[in-house]
Amino acid sequence: MLGRLNHVAIAVKDAEKAARIYGAAFGAEISPAVALPEHGVITVFVTLPNTKIEFIQPLGEASPIAKFLERNADGGIHHVCYEVADIIASRDTLIKEGARVLGDGQPKIGAHGKPVLFLHPKDFSGALVEIEQA
Amino acid sequence: MLGRLNHVAIAVKDAEKAARIYGAAFGAEISPAVALPEHGVITVFVTLPNTKIEFIQPLGEASPIAKFLERNADGGIHHVCYEVADIIASRDTLIKEGARVLGDGQPKIGAHGKPVLFLHPKDFSGALVEIEQA
Repeated sequence: MLGRLNHVAIAVKDAEKAARIYGAAFGAEISPAVALPEHGVITVFVTLPNTKIEFIQPLGEASPIAKFLERNADGGIHHVCYEVADIIASRDTLIKEGARVLGDGQPKIGAHGKPVLFLHPKDFSGALVEIEQA
Repeated sequence: MLGRLNHVAIAVKDAEKAARIYGAAFGAEISPAVALPEHGVITVFVTLPNTKIEFIQPLGEASPIAKFLERNADGGIHHVCYEVADIIASRDTLIKEGARVLGDGQPKIGAHGKPVLFLHPKDFSGALVEIEQA
């Protein structure tokens, strides 16, 4: 069963600046910026009552969001992250249903210290999907 | 104060087919398709424990998502919708903060029978933002 929407990620050149707009325009709660060198991003979270918006900014030369920002200079919605109860069982069901798992298919530790996997956008209506162990 | 994330909208050529992938791959609950001629879309909702995914498919010649699908043939994440307690007060704060409201600035009735407004993506990190009266 599909779990909670953990977050919507928006890629931008300046994550703190982007999050501040939500603070000013909506009075939303903004987290401090955190660098995740192993993922090549800096993250800032905006907390909503039921989920989070994650602003991600490139970190380092080989950031996985650098190309996205070349194509989308203003930024843009980059991915959605769903929680699943068992990431290995979900991965195996997804593969059986014909979805492609990105990378080597082994979960990595994500921004919340939990195992995550990314799924191919072409198998999900053009949307990059992240699944995270709940 | 910014309210709940009401939904993430994904634009696709076939909303029912796109939603079925979530049913098959994740066992998610899928709503019947509903045509909204005044908005130029057909909608199908996927229900998550804390929010919804809205698949939108063009309806009619002048659908507002037709151009998006020309640029994104596989589909893609189209907008995010936040709930606000008072849509008029929120609109006025947003304008004061320099955000642009799309259309004539008057709320229209959205997919849930409540007043909605759309905000310019350039003012929100490239993300099209919908606000909905809670």
